[in-house]
Amino acid sequence: MKGRVDKVLTAFLAAREPELAAVGAELAPVGDALADFLLDGGKRLRPAFCFWGARGAGAQDSDALVAAAASLELLQACALIHDDVMDGSDTRRGKPAVHRRFAALHRAGGWLGDPETFGTSAAVLLGDMCLIWGDRLLDASGLPQEALRRARPVYDDLRSELMAGQYLDLLEQARGGGSVERALRVARFKSAKYTIERPLHLGAALAGAGPEVIEAWTAYGLPLGEAFQLRDDVLGVFGDPARTGKPAGDDLREGKRTVLIAVAVERASPAQRALVRQHLGDPHLDSSGVEALRRVLCETGALAEVERLVEERTALALTALARAPVTDEAREVLAELAVAATRRTL
Amino acid sequence: MKGRVDKVLTAFLAAREPELAAVGAELAPVGDALADFLLDGGKRLRPAFCFWGARGAGAQDSDALVAAAASLELLQACALIHDDVMDGSDTRRGKPAVHRRFAALHRAGGWLGDPETFGTSAAVLLGDMCLIWGDRLLDASGLPQEALRRARPVYDDLRSELMAGQYLDLLEQARGGGSVERALRVARFKSAKYTIERPLHLGAALAGAGPEVIEAWTAYGLPLGEAFQLRDDVLGVFGDPARTGKPAGDDLREGKRTVLIAVAVERASPAQRALVRQHLGDPHLDSSGVEALRRVLCETGALAEVERLVEERTALALTALARAPVTDEAREVLAELAVAATRRTL
Repeated sequence: MKGRVDKVLTAFLAAREPELAAVGAELAPVGDALADFLLDGGKRLRPAFCFWGARGAGAQDSDALVAAAASLELLQACALIHDDVMDGSDTRRGKPAVHRRFAALHRAGGWLGDPETFGTSAAVLLGDMCLIWGDRLLDASGLPQEALRRARPVYDDLRSELMAGQYLDLLEQARGGGSVERALRVARFKSAKYTIERPLHLGAALAGAGPEVIEAWTAYGLPLGEAFQLRDDVLGVFGDPARTGKPAGDDLREGKRTVLIAVAVERASPAQRALVRQHLGDPHLDSSGVEALRRVLCETGALAEVERLVEERTALALTALARAPVTDEAREVLAELAVAATRRTL
Repeated sequence: MKGRVDKVLTAFLAAREPELAAVGAELAPVGDALADFLLDGGKRLRPAFCFWGARGAGAQDSDALVAAAASLELLQACALIHDDVMDGSDTRRGKPAVHRRFAALHRAGGWLGDPETFGTSAAVLLGDMCLIWGDRLLDASGLPQEALRRARPVYDDLRSELMAGQYLDLLEQARGGGSVERALRVARFKSAKYTIERPLHLGAALAGAGPEVIEAWTAYGLPLGEAFQLRDDVLGVFGDPARTGKPAGDDLREGKRTVLIAVAVERASPAQRALVRQHLGDPHLDSSGVEALRRVLCETGALAEVERLVEERTALALTALARAPVTDEAREVLAELAVAATRRTL
């Protein structure tokens, strides 16, 4: 699946090059940056869920279906490029974030104005371009118009929910977090629905599936999506930088108000709570500060509780999958994807 | 036309409210900000050109056609909201820019972190939302699927060219401007095609027009679009703040590398050139600095030359319009729109 998605994206981006060149030769860095960003790494999870969401509902395998599914990677590129601007992240997948890359281009050119402002502006535009190109790849996938007509409202909901969820996440961090319930709601919108449930629904719509498949995809996709985000929260704090592509403790420096943090704060002693207040969101947090926060997450039992939630939700998803009125081939692959999306070392 | 577009946008945004509320009550400021932004002011030029681009090619008047045309206002909202982030503009149409509005919300809430960063992040997301919603309004316009299928590639080109043109503009400012020819190219992509030629083409595609109409719209739309941007450049320096909704001289403070500036630099004496180098792009430029730059624009003859270009290109557009194989009703309205888009007091 990953290889086929890469192939689609490679061809799609190559076809954009002459279009960019028609505007001006100066657009070359835009195409290069997007190619580097899109063709390097990425687990292609969302296209996989879309593809199997369709196949499970009886759709035939086709390159057109893969192309339609791959459009989600362009949307994801928009989300990540804009997210890195919003978080002020330096790196993505172990390489400079897009806004940093364009700030470096500005510096190398010795241009006028502030390099960081130029980098941010370019990244906003490149993210917009990806959002537009996602649409375009879906439309030009080669699937029948009838399938696309069914899919478009789902694709629009998926994108609107993503942006609304991102805003909720932003707000949650600004307000310093709240209950576990509230943190779970953010995880649901910005991740569970966007990464798993809605891609499955998009596939179902492309296949022309009935309500029973759509309901089954929700029963499998929502808890699995929550488990996926919870695993991501854990990796953001305890993950190996070589695997996550982000410096250790970056989520702590950014002050991300995850479920993991919400559970810890709820269970913390006054001293532990003071420590969280002091360190979480400190952009200059050093490794001993990271260690201190990690200890609070362990000692309050928050880490264990989140691990329990991951297991519980993954189990719920697998139970729903076992009962889903879908093809056996899809059932098998989706069971593997459930493990891949929630295992420790992803 | 304006009233009908407003009506469509009002209904569309009202329908989004329960969707946002389903994510969380905290999303209310997002809906409010977008409603305030979209329903206040705005000349609705792009929808008008799209609508008459279709009517001129024989399409019947219908609310569905107005809805499809109105989708361009959502795209324009994305462009403006993101543009204000990139330029760091304080105001838009005389009111706080979206990023400033959300910075103020952050301050009023006494939330954690930097209010400006929160404002910028929210504005990036709200712009993304408008880009997505534009798509959605086009799809849900009620026009036949066949018309939408023809229109989508044009809509995608229009959007891609806008973003590419915006990048070119950014680059031009960073590199301190260049030849008049280069400044004209930026005007062509970020404005002439986006504001006039492509909306006309979108209308033609919706109407199922043949190549002769599409060529006629280019012959009318491209020179008119350039004249429109040149007029905008003049208003950005000499316009009445009460009408432009922007402080006097803001374009000069932002260091915009317009055709007006390029002509002046090309014709300037060494002393005048030094003055431009000193003042243009100075964010703290005061009214005497603005006056000094205005004098250079007048004394070099740049202002007169740009006025001449506006007239020349408007005349070219009107000549092409007179010959265009389109309905007389559209011809009449488009002749009026040409005047409205390029007159001094717009």
